[in-house]
Amino acid sequence: MPVIYEKVALIGLGLIASSMFWAMKRGGLAGHVSGFARSADTRDTAREIGLCDEVCDSIAKTVKDADLVVLCVPVGVMGSVAAEMAGYLKPGCTVTDVGSVKADVIAQVGPLLPEGVHFIPAHPLAGTEHSGPRSGFAELFDNRWCLLVPVPDTNANAISRLRNLWDGMGANVEEMDAEHHDLVLAVTSHAPHLIAYTMVGVADDLRRVTDSEVIKYSAAGFRDFTRIAASDPTMWRDVFLTNKDATLEILGRFTEELFALQRAIRMGDGDHLHDYFTRTRAIRRGIIEAGQDTDAPNFGRQPGNK
Amino acid sequence: MPVIYEKVALIGLGLIASSMFWAMKRGGLAGHVSGFARSADTRDTAREIGLCDEVCDSIAKTVKDADLVVLCVPVGVMGSVAAEMAGYLKPGCTVTDVGSVKADVIAQVGPLLPEGVHFIPAHPLAGTEHSGPRSGFAELFDNRWCLLVPVPDTNANAISRLRNLWDGMGANVEEMDAEHHDLVLAVTSHAPHLIAYTMVGVADDLRRVTDSEVIKYSAAGFRDFTRIAASDPTMWRDVFLTNKDATLEILGRFTEELFALQRAIRMGDGDHLHDYFTRTRAIRRGIIEAGQDTDAPNFGRQPGNK
Repeated sequence: MPVIYEKVALIGLGLIASSMFWAMKRGGLAGHVSGFARSADTRDTAREIGLCDEVCDSIAKTVKDADLVVLCVPVGVMGSVAAEMAGYLKPGCTVTDVGSVKADVIAQVGPLLPEGVHFIPAHPLAGTEHSGPRSGFAELFDNRWCLLVPVPDTNANAISRLRNLWDGMGANVEEMDAEHHDLVLAVTSHAPHLIAYTMVGVADDLRRVTDSEVIKYSAAGFRDFTRIAASDPTMWRDVFLTNKDATLEILGRFTEELFALQRAIRMGDGDHLHDYFTRTRAIRRGIIEAGQDTDAPNFGRQPGNK
Repeated sequence: MPVIYEKVALIGLGLIASSMFWAMKRGGLAGHVSGFARSADTRDTAREIGLCDEVCDSIAKTVKDADLVVLCVPVGVMGSVAAEMAGYLKPGCTVTDVGSVKADVIAQVGPLLPEGVHFIPAHPLAGTEHSGPRSGFAELFDNRWCLLVPVPDTNANAISRLRNLWDGMGANVEEMDAEHHDLVLAVTSHAPHLIAYTMVGVADDLRRVTDSEVIKYSAAGFRDFTRIAASDPTMWRDVFLTNKDATLEILGRFTEELFALQRAIRMGDGDHLHDYFTRTRAIRRGIIEAGQDTDAPNFGRQPGNK
């Protein structure tokens, strides 16, 4: 595949940025990739493992001459990072991001960018429970979705070029408007994460009572929640604070349903429970047919050795 | 390994029974295994795939001369099955079960068994989202826990023999009393399952609004919930109805915590959220160190092909 951007700058060097670097290298998609992280430790690690062609000590140097700048920082600091770099951007470059919330990022970052810079917010729906510069891998985006959320009147060639980059990194690309994105993600990601965090927190409280039994017997279902609840705390704090309305709306619906099921348990209404559980089974089938998960039992996890 | 029981009878031929059969064959633990399922379709499938040395058309014939009878049916019908078989049990045999709830099963089944039969309730903490006679595999119990819940004054030799069987099938065996079992499982399994069912139900409602986007973009976190919510509806209906008090208690605590986190989101209390999410991260580490889950990103799922 031909080089799509001569120079790419990655701001923030966590799971997504490091996976983008390896995926761009795999596909030969970028001529030169520079990287910056706020923490000196992270920059040292990046240099040690060969993450980025050049790791810079300042944002100004990182974005200099870049054709594409990718903001890979928590949603809560997108605005301050954009303010810091705005004066150093190459005219005509594209600025994008990988944040999990879009309306808030557009409101924060958009007004700070100079005339002539193409701002194309994006969100790759891919991740793992690990974080930091060592957690990335080239295959992370393979067959995952990347949603582009361009603001009105964005240059079509600039969009098409960014689309080609994500396509080259293995993703399926779609466009969506910001409000709709934030609602869909509240359902598929933000509310489930908060619920998993909550259940794990409850179990953690009880763990002190039951002397590690919660950990020992976690394979009965609970351990799946703990994977999600091991995700990066800063990233997720910012997601909930910046997608507040949609998340709270979905959590409100969730609580209503939970109360209805609790009532069915209390009243012994087995038919209600059975009907509900039969309906939810179908959605799993849809996800497997859509190629978004494996049908292997327990996700194909390997059993441990005795 | 030497044969532990000359004849084993499996009542019900779903995921657990079929996995027990293959695990017993792998270890050479049983001389002869007979099996029974209420549905003629299930019996036909079992015969077709060689599940059990003999598939019988009646419970009476299945349990005849058996040294061990294993009830592998939903918790809600344990009592009626026990009543049906009680008159045909071999004197001195052991009756066990694999139900996810123990106090209720003991109350249902215990009084129905004749004098001289050893009743040793059990619960292997292992499963997948699949069900039925084709879903079993020999490795299901490897390095998983099996909890034995013997009632007071149970014959020590009978316990030791059943323990050896589970050990031979790959499990780690522990003993626990019924009330404690039901509370621990409410935390590690029953409440998480109800929560997953609820979230998937909410998303299913919204799916109609958003035209399959929930399925399409499920990899953002939601798909993990759908695996749990694809579990057998009859089994889970019975679990909630028979472990009502402990499940409702844990769900009550869950709702309290969820409301506290929702309030933190609404008030913009980022510190509360960050502290909570940092704490839950630690429990994942404990589970991995205990050998109860893999540290591979996303459970080591294979990425799909584009």
